[in-house]
Amino acid sequence: MKKKYTIMVSNDDGIDAPGIYALVQELKKIGNVVVVAPDEQRSAVGHAITMNYPLRVKKFYKYEKFFGYGVEGTPADSVKIGVRTVLGKNPDLLVSGINHGSNTAINILYSGTVSAATEGRILGIPSIAVSLTTYDEPDFRFAAKFSRLLAQEVLKKGLPEDTLLNVNIPPIPEREIRGVRITRQGKSKWDDTFDVRRDPNNKEYYWLTGKLEVLDTSEETDYIAIRQKYISITPIHFDLTAYDALPVIRSWNLSKLHTAGKRLKK
Amino acid sequence: MKKKYTIMVSNDDGIDAPGIYALVQELKKIGNVVVVAPDEQRSAVGHAITMNYPLRVKKFYKYEKFFGYGVEGTPADSVKIGVRTVLGKNPDLLVSGINHGSNTAINILYSGTVSAATEGRILGIPSIAVSLTTYDEPDFRFAAKFSRLLAQEVLKKGLPEDTLLNVNIPPIPEREIRGVRITRQGKSKWDDTFDVRRDPNNKEYYWLTGKLEVLDTSEETDYIAIRQKYISITPIHFDLTAYDALPVIRSWNLSKLHTAGKRLKK
Repeated sequence: MKKKYTIMVSNDDGIDAPGIYALVQELKKIGNVVVVAPDEQRSAVGHAITMNYPLRVKKFYKYEKFFGYGVEGTPADSVKIGVRTVLGKNPDLLVSGINHGSNTAINILYSGTVSAATEGRILGIPSIAVSLTTYDEPDFRFAAKFSRLLAQEVLKKGLPEDTLLNVNIPPIPEREIRGVRITRQGKSKWDDTFDVRRDPNNKEYYWLTGKLEVLDTSEETDYIAIRQKYISITPIHFDLTAYDALPVIRSWNLSKLHTAGKRLKK
Repeated sequence: MKKKYTIMVSNDDGIDAPGIYALVQELKKIGNVVVVAPDEQRSAVGHAITMNYPLRVKKFYKYEKFFGYGVEGTPADSVKIGVRTVLGKNPDLLVSGINHGSNTAINILYSGTVSAATEGRILGIPSIAVSLTTYDEPDFRFAAKFSRLLAQEVLKKGLPEDTLLNVNIPPIPEREIRGVRITRQGKSKWDDTFDVRRDPNNKEYYWLTGKLEVLDTSEETDYIAIRQKYISITPIHFDLTAYDALPVIRSWNLSKLHTAGKRLKK
């Protein structure tokens, strides 16, 4: 059987993570899979790219078989280099994951998993980010299977322009999952605390820790969907313009500041 | 004179960069300025945060005077630690910059300068990111003065909820600037190329380079405003939901995939 589709896979947990392995096994059933992922864990890197250092790409083997390309860089780097040098063209689909841990609410901004999919979409590739919302010992099997089924839908239907899908799957047995909910990013913030410690030389250092404050408990949000045992799928984009705020800021008539600037110069 | 406002300043070019120095000199005229910035350049880091390593904070002196706190971390780390440990509360305003280089169009996503301001806004602080759109030898004086005037407006009027301002200033003499334009993020993508080189051990490595492809040349975009010699101010937010796409994805009726998943399990 000739496989019709080329699917690129990346992540932020690194090419050796169990989540990407589970994902690849499933996606191989529907296409030719090319894995290009960071060579080690690069979590919470946001949409970082590497411009001031060289990037290296190494072949990576898993269970003695060639598995894919490990990039000494960020998730976004991996996608860029995967598309431009490994594949030399856009794949039909990009799937990033499966992340070990939730990427809902404000965490989307910090997420390397989402960033890889965003980079794919910027390059014009229909892209999906998938996360399993647990920090305990994960079982990726259902999440991987669901990713394949969703991938098939996206390959068939395409995605709206400049839109990618951010998928979060609750870490519960498949039979307990209540369905799929199309959600929005829930409003939240981290209540950060910094643990102050002293190193062996008595110098102070800080560890970032904290607690997510959920500021919106609507059923339509990603965070609450997961809590209610639904798979959450949020269509996201990368136009950060706050359109609602445009008329407000325009009404400030800020061109007067430039004139004021001139006067102050004298 | 008792200064009414506390203003936090950060950036991504590092605490020793000329852009942050110029900004601080101007903002000192209107408030108590607390500088908490990366200890060295952290450009293109996106919205990265440091969770797996300890953070250190050092006092930094410039021209033998205490200037601020240098953080061994990203711009977002600096803002978090600045608010939580250095200041212990939210300042009245956060200004990030002045970046040496443009942060318009798709570059907003990669920008550490914007990320510091975004982190401030997530924490509830009215926040502004300022960039001077040149890679040549910069003169930050006008950009710093304009930042102060805009800061005064924001301190007076506040900002719409969850909205920050992304300001780009063209690198031309003040008298040539045609005014202020309130813009949206211009659609664009990088046409990436990877320069393939060999190290002294004959191992291959890659340098990321490329050219910005502007896909939208409307006068309302940030990129074009700069080209037309206007100061560009884009209100941005951090809700990435693609609201227009919600009905499209809902119409796919994806709950059927979960059922399909169950069948496949048997």
